[in-house]
Amino acid sequence: MPQLNAIVTALESDDKVKVVVFDSAVEGFFLTHYDFLAKPEDTTNLPPGPTGLPMLPDMLVRISRAPVVSIALIRGRATGVGSELALASDMRFANREKAILSQWEVGAGIVPGGGPMARLPRLMGRGRALEVLMGADDMGGDLAELYGYVNRALPDSELDEFVDALAVRIASFDKQAIAETKRLVDIASLPPDAEICPEWQACMASIARPAAQARLKVLMERGFHKPGDVENRLGYHVGQLAI
Amino acid sequence: MPQLNAIVTALESDDKVKVVVFDSAVEGFFLTHYDFLAKPEDTTNLPPGPTGLPMLPDMLVRISRAPVVSIALIRGRATGVGSELALASDMRFANREKAILSQWEVGAGIVPGGGPMARLPRLMGRGRALEVLMGADDMGGDLAELYGYVNRALPDSELDEFVDALAVRIASFDKQAIAETKRLVDIASLPPDAEICPEWQACMASIARPAAQARLKVLMERGFHKPGDVENRLGYHVGQLAI
Amino acid sequence: MPQLNAIVTALESDDKVKVVVFDSAVEGFFLTHYDFLAKPEDTTNLPPGPTGLPMLPDMLVRISRAPVVSIALIRGRATGVGSELALASDMRFANREKAILSQWEVGAGIVPGGGPMARLPRLMGRGRALEVLMGADDMGGDLAELYGYVNRALPDSELDEFVDALAVRIASFDKQAIAETKRLVDIASLPPDAEICPEWQACMASIARPAAQARLKVLMERGFHKPGDVENRLGYHVGQLAI
Repeated sequence: MPQLNAIVTALESDDKVKVVVFDSAVEGFFLTHYDFLAKPEDTTNLPPGPTGLPMLPDMLVRISRAPVVSIALIRGRATGVGSELALASDMRFANREKAILSQWEVGAGIVPGGGPMARLPRLMGRGRALEVLMGADDMGGDLAELYGYVNRALPDSELDEFVDALAVRIASFDKQAIAETKRLVDIASLPPDAEICPEWQACMASIARPAAQARLKVLMERGFHKPGDVENRLGYHVGQLAI
Repeated sequence: MPQLNAIVTALESDDKVKVVVFDSAVEGFFLTHYDFLAKPEDTTNLPPGPTGLPMLPDMLVRISRAPVVSIALIRGRATGVGSELALASDMRFANREKAILSQWEVGAGIVPGGGPMARLPRLMGRGRALEVLMGADDMGGDLAELYGYVNRALPDSELDEFVDALAVRIASFDKQAIAETKRLVDIASLPPDAEICPEWQACMASIARPAAQARLKVLMERGFHKPGDVENRLGYHVGQLAI
Repeated sequence: MPQLNAIVTALESDDKVKVVVFDSAVEGFFLTHYDFLAKPEDTTNLPPGPTGLPMLPDMLVRISRAPVVSIALIRGRATGVGSELALASDMRFANREKAILSQWEVGAGIVPGGGPMARLPRLMGRGRALEVLMGADDMGGDLAELYGYVNRALPDSELDEFVDALAVRIASFDKQAIAETKRLVDIASLPPDAEICPEWQACMASIARPAAQARLKVLMERGFHKPGDVENRLGYHVGQLAI
């Protein structure tokens, strides 16, 4: 988190950068989920950020407000906090064949904590947002495009080139026009921070409850946090807990 | 309405139930419209509900807020109050071949009264919501899916199995995680009750006006409230009144 | 602008008209952009309208609120203020083969001024709205339909007949039911005027800045404001400025 925080701070203050693309170097994954093997205190002891929010939601909120266009390039699994980073970005483009998005947390007894309850309904409407959150299942590129979870799903062979061309194009525009236009979109479309904060609190409280601990324990026994089927098909596996 | 009210009350207070599916046992129909043969007083004399709203909008608002996931399984016509019940539910899945959704009321000189002016624009944007409400026409499953009127349209052969699997899946999750996550989505996505109440008042007033009474009279003469073409193609028939 | 203002005033006060269709008699164009050859004072000296907003945003806001259903029939390019007129209208139907929509302004160093930052995110969600505004590129009918930029894209051979049938249908309905229903949709879906006004101010300020003036100068040298490739593919050409 401190590493991402340094990037967000740079994006806020650099007077030249106009576009940032969030991409992954890990085959099959954009970004998946918290490290549930770490101590909760590692997260809860982090100082709040400049917005007054805890560090993770603080960083996500600041990405949305930065005077820079942010693009999530989603080639693999963008689930949990990975979905939340994508949702906090300005745009999302997904690999039609390989991208998977989800908020799997409710399936493990956890309330998501990085903003999806505030952001998903504004993006795709309440009905589809509730399906994503309550169904907690893996969603492929075609359905993510239909629902507006991503801007578009593109064929594997075209995605990188498309995003690169868009980023280079925007980078040729005037930074002040970009920043002022985005700020006006922010007014119309960003959830207030007061909606973001309670998600984090509900998330942290839910992880500590027996319902989540029991489900996380079974998931760990089955291979969570290790390369393999539980990580590759987390949506399926949270549906097999039946606790 | 008292029967539905009892169900809603049970959903609010039961500490085990996690999912409810609204389905229809009547071939070709989910739920269509008010009983215009009944006396208006039968409706207007009903006591307001716990929210302070009149009974029908009260029940719909309470379904949206209940700590239970509600799914509308739409196999036939979900029009008028049937569309409004579907819109108050958390998710909507439609039969691609047979489902018909509409708010046909404006076509009969009536202002819809159960929340669609508040709910449709938040689901599909203002432009498509105005088309649904002002066009007052029958809409099939494919277009309802494109517009986000329903989450998805599924083939007749897959719909029941899909909804059943989703309901069983959600029912295996932790009730507290479901309820808390839904409550946070509610904050981001539910219209305030102050938007719902004026719809009901405008609806009741409109039904009493000559413009609606004249149109309802012609519809009745042509077969409204009886099995047959007017009920089966109400969108077409409200377009043939030309009064 | 005074001509359009006269039309808007007539729509507000006529007690019979129920539907207005905005169409174009110019092959290939719905409406494109401001006249950058005119003096800025020609626009800025116009008196504010009845809403207190400057004349252009005032007229657009009043179209949205008029007790009349407005339909934009988009056969050609609806870009810049043409897109803004379409977005202020209640519904938009586009020619699938020939329609082009865009907010190209950021590509020329200009902040759009007629409401798209307030209206686009409410119609298609923040992510796709930011793509339209920051990408500043031409968008065809298929993608405009997927994004909800238009209600639907229809084949060239069907568009006129479809819009005509819809307009005639709505015109057969009761004006009071239309107006009251629309007013309730307005409450749920229109941006407050306080979001519209700053766009206009930011737009006017941006046009005067060197970043915009330099880009407009190059565009003019390449054929802007004359029939030809720059007007026909403005999205492409703002991507070729690289200033």
